Amino acid sequence: MRYLYDYMTRSNTLAIQDLYPDDFGHCFGCGRHNAHGHQLKSFVEGEEVVARFTPSPHHISVPGFVYGGLLASLLDCHAMATAAAAAEHAANRKIGDGPAPRFVTAALHVEYLKPTPLGVELEIRASVTTRTDRKAVVVSTISAAGTVTARGEIVAVRMPDSMRK
Amino acid sequence: MRYLYDYMTRSNTLAIQDLYPDDFGHCFGCGRHNAHGHQLKSFVEGEEVVARFTPSPHHISVPGFVYGGLLASLLDCHAMATAAAAAEHAANRKIGDGPAPRFVTAALHVEYLKPTPLGVELEIRASVTTRTDRKAVVVSTISAAGTVTARGEIVAVRMPDSMRK
Repeated sequence: MRYLYDYMTRSNTLAIQDLYPDDFGHCFGCGRHNAHGHQLKSFVEGEEVVARFTPSPHHISVPGFVYGGLLASLLDCHAMATAAAAAEHAANRKIGDGPAPRFVTAALHVEYLKPTPLGVELEIRASVTTRTDRKAVVVSTISAAGTVTARGEIVAVRMPDSMRK
Repeated sequence: MRYLYDYMTRSNTLAIQDLYPDDFGHCFGCGRHNAHGHQLKSFVEGEEVVARFTPSPHHISVPGFVYGGLLASLLDCHAMATAAAAAEHAANRKIGDGPAPRFVTAALHVEYLKPTPLGVELEIRASVTTRTDRKAVVVSTISAAGTVTARGEIVAVRMPDSMRK
């Protein structure tokens, strides 16, 4: 697994979410085992974590535009993946050296700057602004056809033991 | 339609979302015409707007708990319905007097206070704290089995003409 990071680009099929342990693989937003979910895939690209996602026609708000709750969901899962990558980096490891660390959302803030058009691929970019071992603040954007339509600021915390079943 | 409001309780089948014009009825979160969506239904109950929703097994985050993106989505749609009801009230009308006014989300803030257990009905309660003709701030909670697990503060704005197709 040592060199996965070097290949974690768009052209590779292994996303951060693919490195989560199986019990984290069911998430409606990004779980590889959830056939009904969005299956978001986030990749390290330089200093940022990037995902691309094309909403389905039923991810509509009003005709022509993407549902804001979906955008919040994408930012949420993408932020957890970004926090995981940053935690590995801070520990002098590369994401892919082992199972990705698991973070959960403590707070989510999304600003909808413009309506997001339906029918185009969205690009989600995120980075960590501040972090401790327990917590990371992730800032992010969603762009549609080169225009930023939403901005996120999300607080990720290490998954507490109480959530392990 | 004059007296719908008086009957808009849990036992009635007409929710605020059922009063949206048809082009607002496709929303992934609450559109009555979206067979793939959550179809959230929000009702005026006294001074608050209330919805109940039981997540499906695939609305999972980690085993046993509800996906936070779904919770954000429910709070989002519920807040738009709450803003619509408040706008009608401020205009000395009752929700149901005519098509419900349409609001869209400008900003969404969710605090996840505790993990939300999967498998139980959730109760979402909201009210408007401040409003103008153009904008409303909606505060809300999600409870699972009587315990508040998430809190929302959402800024709703009247849908701009640019979003009408």
